[in-house]
Amino acid sequence: MKDKIEFIAFDADDTLWENELHCQEFERKFCHLLACHLPASTVSRELLGTEMKNLRLYGYGLKGMMLSMIETACRIIGKDGKTGCIEEIINIGQELLEKPVELLEGSKEVLTQLYGKYKLVLATKGDLFDQQRKIAASGLQEYFCHIEIMSDKKDADYRKLLGNIGCSPENFLMIGNSIKSDILPVLELGGYAVHIPHHVTWAYEQYEGEIKHPRYLSLNTIGEVPGYL
Amino acid sequence: MKDKIEFIAFDADDTLWENELHCQEFERKFCHLLACHLPASTVSRELLGTEMKNLRLYGYGLKGMMLSMIETACRIIGKDGKTGCIEEIINIGQELLEKPVELLEGSKEVLTQLYGKYKLVLATKGDLFDQQRKIAASGLQEYFCHIEIMSDKKDADYRKLLGNIGCSPENFLMIGNSIKSDILPVLELGGYAVHIPHHVTWAYEQYEGEIKHPRYLSLNTIGEVPGYL
Repeated sequence: MKDKIEFIAFDADDTLWENELHCQEFERKFCHLLACHLPASTVSRELLGTEMKNLRLYGYGLKGMMLSMIETACRIIGKDGKTGCIEEIINIGQELLEKPVELLEGSKEVLTQLYGKYKLVLATKGDLFDQQRKIAASGLQEYFCHIEIMSDKKDADYRKLLGNIGCSPENFLMIGNSIKSDILPVLELGGYAVHIPHHVTWAYEQYEGEIKHPRYLSLNTIGEVPGYL
Repeated sequence: MKDKIEFIAFDADDTLWENELHCQEFERKFCHLLACHLPASTVSRELLGTEMKNLRLYGYGLKGMMLSMIETACRIIGKDGKTGCIEEIINIGQELLEKPVELLEGSKEVLTQLYGKYKLVLATKGDLFDQQRKIAASGLQEYFCHIEIMSDKKDADYRKLLGNIGCSPENFLMIGNSIKSDILPVLELGGYAVHIPHHVTWAYEQYEGEIKHPRYLSLNTIGEVPGYL
């Protein structure tokens, strides 16, 4: 593998820095706001349903999550409900949009080790504005020769990324925490993929199956990556 | 000018297709929803204030506008207000996110005339997901050798764009409806700029001054562009 890889692309949220943990905290607070109407598990299910319905309108990212929460809250509390909890959702969401970026353990060290040996790419999905803010705040920008903020991470999106960087799939390695978004489409195109599981995963990104593939590797921490290259 | 220009970049919203008109309709409906609390002009002013405050959190785009409307509505109707109008804001916003793209008169014809003679670029500001949807729906994608969705249109953003396409400012022409976003930063960098005013302009993008600059031209319609090149 080592000789063939030219470009190494890293997912950002939950691979280089913490993200889903904050989203889940936001969801817990959201459920708490509606606790007098419905149990938390029902509120969570309702929210996921709204998010899935709205994905084709909003795409990924925190602003879409806020809008889906507001829509879900309106539905649960009814037309004559009061707006107090809507303001709370906006306040908590805005706090999250300003939250400092917390790098995950080992991520900066791995980039330092690989920098200069491979061309490093950041390939992240979500809201353009919020992702750019986080990239700037992470202090990791300088490691990357190319940053691609993608509206989705399907086969076609990776094909476009490979075109943009001028790389064949067999010279491309993707590292990320989501099997669905970071691993399967890259293997499908003929690239290499390393899965680094994160301790929390969004329900939408969860994957139950087991992958056996000659170009796939699952590691426990990002710090193990250089040793396997 | 003709001999020097290699790349021609087009703004999208209100240059190639209608946008601000729909935002202003949305705002009128929003003001109507709150008409029993405050006069429309006050509601509009409150909304613009909220949007400006939130620009550094949300960036540009319709999802941010929806969130700022919801925040403004909550503030106006008070904590004990009812959620009915919040649901309406979400419904109208979601309709707008699905609205078919209406090309402005002459935009497709101009692209057809210039295609093959210049390298055409689409340089648009706003929400990644929504802009990608509109680009796909416009049917104009094939004319462009490069599409840049920018979170802002300041000098630094254009400098990045020029780097991405490998073009010097003196070989670059930008065409757009916003003096602040499409014209001034490009002139500042040393590029050429053509202003095509649109019949409606967002308060934030309005510009009162007059520009006299050797690399600047103001035309009435996009159809006049090829004649001036």
